[in-house]
Amino acid sequence: MTPEEYVLFASSLAKKANKKAIGPNPFVGAVVVDEKGIIIGTGYHQKWGDKHAEVYAIEEAVSHNQDLTNCSLYVTLEPCSHHGKTPPCTDLIVQSGIKKVFVGSLDPNPKVSGFVLLKEKGIDIVLVELKETLELNKVFFTNQKKQRPFVSLKIAATIDAKIADYTGTSKWITNEESRNFVHANIRTEVDAVISTAKTVIEDKATLNCRIPGQENVALNAVIIDRTGRMLQEQNGELPIYYNRTNTHVFIVTAPNALQKNQLLPNSVRIIEIDFNANNEVNLNQLGKALLDAGLYHVLIEAGSMFSSYALEHQWADELHYFIGSKILLDSAAKPAFTSTHPTRLSNSMQLSVVKSLTFKDDVYIHYKIDSL
Amino acid sequence: MTPEEYVLFASSLAKKANKKAIGPNPFVGAVVVDEKGIIIGTGYHQKWGDKHAEVYAIEEAVSHNQDLTNCSLYVTLEPCSHHGKTPPCTDLIVQSGIKKVFVGSLDPNPKVSGFVLLKEKGIDIVLVELKETLELNKVFFTNQKKQRPFVSLKIAATIDAKIADYTGTSKWITNEESRNFVHANIRTEVDAVISTAKTVIEDKATLNCRIPGQENVALNAVIIDRTGRMLQEQNGELPIYYNRTNTHVFIVTAPNALQKNQLLPNSVRIIEIDFNANNEVNLNQLGKALLDAGLYHVLIEAGSMFSSYALEHQWADELHYFIGSKILLDSAAKPAFTSTHPTRLSNSMQLSVVKSLTFKDDVYIHYKIDSL
Repeated sequence: MTPEEYVLFASSLAKKANKKAIGPNPFVGAVVVDEKGIIIGTGYHQKWGDKHAEVYAIEEAVSHNQDLTNCSLYVTLEPCSHHGKTPPCTDLIVQSGIKKVFVGSLDPNPKVSGFVLLKEKGIDIVLVELKETLELNKVFFTNQKKQRPFVSLKIAATIDAKIADYTGTSKWITNEESRNFVHANIRTEVDAVISTAKTVIEDKATLNCRIPGQENVALNAVIIDRTGRMLQEQNGELPIYYNRTNTHVFIVTAPNALQKNQLLPNSVRIIEIDFNANNEVNLNQLGKALLDAGLYHVLIEAGSMFSSYALEHQWADELHYFIGSKILLDSAAKPAFTSTHPTRLSNSMQLSVVKSLTFKDDVYIHYKIDSL
Repeated sequence: MTPEEYVLFASSLAKKANKKAIGPNPFVGAVVVDEKGIIIGTGYHQKWGDKHAEVYAIEEAVSHNQDLTNCSLYVTLEPCSHHGKTPPCTDLIVQSGIKKVFVGSLDPNPKVSGFVLLKEKGIDIVLVELKETLELNKVFFTNQKKQRPFVSLKIAATIDAKIADYTGTSKWITNEESRNFVHANIRTEVDAVISTAKTVIEDKATLNCRIPGQENVALNAVIIDRTGRMLQEQNGELPIYYNRTNTHVFIVTAPNALQKNQLLPNSVRIIEIDFNANNEVNLNQLGKALLDAGLYHVLIEAGSMFSSYALEHQWADELHYFIGSKILLDSAAKPAFTSTHPTRLSNSMQLSVVKSLTFKDDVYIHYKIDSL
């Protein structure tokens, strides 16, 4: 097996973890391989606060073979070098006698400098960065690097990129198969859906996961609502206020938008964030607040104003684009993308196709949004 | 074999014909099958003015078996019942003694009533209409029913459905693979490309087929040019006026737009068509004129004004939609689709996906446009 293959195997171990159990920690897998190429230890990070992957792998290896001097360690993420909930993995690696380490990705956390530290200790450490190891922790890396959730953006539009006709009607631009796919494969992956008060009130949106033949699954919702319209009496019965136990409706208002003694439904949490002179939410503040609330991966399903605002401010990492099989051919229809910022083709946003699927006459394109 | 399978086999024979050799006649294939299910005669229409498919198949069958009383005929298109270049096939079928006929599609030509006529003669005639038999002659059927060419429309746009940025720059929205596909698989299929004087002059378009590693292939061009700008002196050297032998540049002007003594380049043909008060070409007249010029299948590659005008007037039968991997996110960019006609979602144009392909980060969707 090549180093890449051992790293890939470690990556497959990492994926065995339950996202909710480890969050906000990254997925990590590790294997120890002896001089004959035999895997004598495996491990993956299983629970936040518990042992790291390297510890499992090295402990198992030691139980087979006291001397790891001729063994190599393959780990999907740079080993930690600081005291967190557990002691630094770099110490354990050095103590184990392992002389060669392959690392599948670097840890963007500035506290983690295991790569340099192990090198300084004389260990032959090699970076084997693979598409799979980067993908494995795309949420964690984004959280660390951008201090905000990993943001998925979903847009369902006509062939001419309209999300509603001139009357505002958008039901239905895409077909049932596409809509089911959103519930079963996209909403299920995220910690919360973000929308705006306007969209949630007008569409009477529920923003949960509805999968045919299964019970509805509750989902956190984050509603951008500068003035707190969601909490006005006439909106008290909106479908989004369904009976919740472990999920919340996070309402993002401007500071002091609500009265001090405002009574809140049980499931509501208020997040106060600054809005600018154009009534646009401060995305830096919002990103940090969402991480603090334990929302590491969010999905924007909103109108074109907020979607385009997020895109324009590099606050979207991937786009789930659904193209219904209609052409409205009407300049008064509502565009899916909107901005008045003059952009030349040479400076336009560049995306790459992750995959494309056809649902009857709808086409779904999953785009990765390249960072600028 | 089922009747459908025999018709499909006849359809595969039909496709052996060279489109240019038979045009404007349809593709037709036929087989005669004996009582044991053995195919004893096959044929397809090979050349305009020559024998029809049924004649070949029946002649071959007779050479094996004088008596066709217990045989069946499978033919992809309703047999002709009128004297054209050849005598009516219905006469031959009756004379042959065949008692059972399966027909893969009806002939929209009102002169052809073979189906009814054979039924009246006591022949058991069954319509086995298949997707393949309709597809086989989509050009012919459209020519007959709509008295215009079969119209393909090609659009290359950004994800937000823009065909140029606010400065008019469109090079390049799609990648080289997409552009090569247009030349190798779309332009090669048509009798002419239609564009407008504006597009041809601004883009210095050649509108031929350029396939890497092959010699350029000449292609007829039809240029909508009400006032005859294409013939102004400063446009005499446009790339579209390349050295042509068998192809022409058809310039569509309003009647009397040109001076009587106007000198024309060798390859130019003028088609005079009425334009309405909005300077829009009369599509009914244009359709007939193009058929008269021997252009049975045309490809629109023009700006959004003409493309949308054609779409809006049901003058497009399929859409080749290429989505480049950029988002311009600028309301001032040029939209791919434009019209000021208010349209509700429930009345919007409905398309169906024929196929979808990915060229690196471009997505190509081939849509069939459902007739209203």
